[in-house]
Amino acid sequence: MSDLLVIGTGLIGTSLGLAATSAGYRVQLADGDPEHVRQAQAAGAGEARTDDSPEPAIVVVAVPPSAAAAVIAEALRAHPRATVTDVCSVKAPVLAALAADGADLRRVVGGHPMAGRETSGPGAASAELFHGRTWLLTPLPQTDPERIGHVRELAAATGAAVREMPAELHDKAVALTSHAPQVVSSLMAARLAHSDPDTVAVAGQGLRDVVRIAGSDPGLWADILCTNADEVTPVLASLRDDLAELLAALEVADGAARGRVSKVIAAGNRGSALLPAKHGGVAASYVELPVEVPDAPGELGRLFLVAGDAGVNLEDVRIEHTVGRLTAIAHLYVLPEVLPDLRDALRGGDWLVLE
Amino acid sequence: MSDLLVIGTGLIGTSLGLAATSAGYRVQLADGDPEHVRQAQAAGAGEARTDDSPEPAIVVVAVPPSAAAAVIAEALRAHPRATVTDVCSVKAPVLAALAADGADLRRVVGGHPMAGRETSGPGAASAELFHGRTWLLTPLPQTDPERIGHVRELAAATGAAVREMPAELHDKAVALTSHAPQVVSSLMAARLAHSDPDTVAVAGQGLRDVVRIAGSDPGLWADILCTNADEVTPVLASLRDDLAELLAALEVADGAARGRVSKVIAAGNRGSALLPAKHGGVAASYVELPVEVPDAPGELGRLFLVAGDAGVNLEDVRIEHTVGRLTAIAHLYVLPEVLPDLRDALRGGDWLVLE
Repeated sequence: MSDLLVIGTGLIGTSLGLAATSAGYRVQLADGDPEHVRQAQAAGAGEARTDDSPEPAIVVVAVPPSAAAAVIAEALRAHPRATVTDVCSVKAPVLAALAADGADLRRVVGGHPMAGRETSGPGAASAELFHGRTWLLTPLPQTDPERIGHVRELAAATGAAVREMPAELHDKAVALTSHAPQVVSSLMAARLAHSDPDTVAVAGQGLRDVVRIAGSDPGLWADILCTNADEVTPVLASLRDDLAELLAALEVADGAARGRVSKVIAAGNRGSALLPAKHGGVAASYVELPVEVPDAPGELGRLFLVAGDAGVNLEDVRIEHTVGRLTAIAHLYVLPEVLPDLRDALRGGDWLVLE
Repeated sequence: MSDLLVIGTGLIGTSLGLAATSAGYRVQLADGDPEHVRQAQAAGAGEARTDDSPEPAIVVVAVPPSAAAAVIAEALRAHPRATVTDVCSVKAPVLAALAADGADLRRVVGGHPMAGRETSGPGAASAELFHGRTWLLTPLPQTDPERIGHVRELAAATGAAVREMPAELHDKAVALTSHAPQVVSSLMAARLAHSDPDTVAVAGQGLRDVVRIAGSDPGLWADILCTNADEVTPVLASLRDDLAELLAALEVADGAARGRVSKVIAAGNRGSALLPAKHGGVAASYVELPVEVPDAPGELGRLFLVAGDAGVNLEDVRIEHTVGRLTAIAHLYVLPEVLPDLRDALRGGDWLVLE
């Protein structure tokens, strides 16, 4: 099996070391912080690279976007026969910096495993982090096809679904679907920072969903947003323009203004309708049953057991929590033909069906 | 039992008619659209009001915010002994308009049941819509305490938890926790409106959560936002200012800019930390286990059964769907002491635990 060198043993690098090790790769680990390497090695992600280590066939650079180009360039120089890939969530600026540096781009395969976790560092690593996730590759026209194949093999070995995409399209796509939503969520959550508790006490699930990702790491995200500034700026600028128009309308708040506000909400309707349904084509075939769940240990498990005992398959579940409520609402999604059975079973078990 | 008149038989009015009828109120129904009254009556929400109907003790005005003040004023004139309440999500401007009109404010009890549904109209009504929800009342200093008591009784009879709050504080609270998040979600979703499918195909659960509420009714929301413009404008204006600062920083994208971007994300960290945890004080005592779930009928139910068979209570569940993935991830939350049992049971059943 191939020798693999992972440079940067944070969450992603260590997880990759674990996954590649179980897939049979011989993994070497390197990091500016020797304590990180020690932790990654202790977790089973590989062996610390030393002067005696064999030359790696593949180098994976798993460092933040702002450092990626320099570390990739250095890896290309230090390992003149190796294929070098990375895991950055921004691609084109990194590849452009390498091109400007005169790097050997035939050996570079840009990559972005779309996986993460709310906690960072080697301690949060998992061999299963990439399982079932999309791993995007952004090879250049000059990239050696055989080397693309080796990186595809590595990504597939972690359980990820590999997909190729031009670097520019990748950066545009993540600006829209990941970077801008992060900013929007953070900006909304920041509004709560100086609010009094009585105000927050009326919050429902809507606010909770909008700010769910607002706990993200500020340093990493500043790095991502600044590196992808060219793509994320136009998305945020158009949002700013719509917001300015909405604020101007709210200042007047007459009949015509109402029409302009309504247009903004309607545009959101159209946009959200473009998101593929959760279950692809079959989403429309599920019906929803809301059920009250006392917010106490064991109640949710008890609810699922009732469905199981009635022979009803739950296709999806969404739990709605509201601040200050003593109960939650479980929204159960099932096939229409079993809805009456589920309803009867729940009512027979003294559950409050909220329909 | 009291005679109750519901004016406006949409989702909220019809649901209230249903709930009040089962609580023993004699409910009369009125609406500008006779078809809505017919539907509400057919659903069992009460009887259409006629000239022969007895005088109501309570009138509930369930019309959109922009129409509320005029309809309340008319109800006060038409029913000179009745208590008049409403269900508007904006309170102070409605009460101010009534005061300017010289209305008898001793008989007015402003109300806001915090309940809704993604579909509107009498057909979506439910007797259980208010169950366990917060129903805010915003009485004025001159409101007759006995009349407040009658509206409290009505709200409590629907299963809601009643809470009093000054109208100005109410409007400020909903601007921050409901109206601004709606705008932010709609603005983000609107960015997707002209995107190509390849771009949206890389969307993860983060985007999905941010835009979940972006499907809301444009007309109703234009009405709400314009009526509460005084309170929602400052929240959105401060968000605009932060966004402008962030965009200015992204234009430079140097080291200093990175610090300014990081500050915006960090402010979001602080704000989201102020949202009470889902389960109040005990949230911290749950641990999370991510499990892969094939996105096929029955798999989720099968997963819950494994937990049930192992005697493990699930305390919370969050399902993560990603566009283009063939599997979903169920995040299971349990008490730490049962985590090993759950892990063993899942692994024994060939489930892929993603940790």
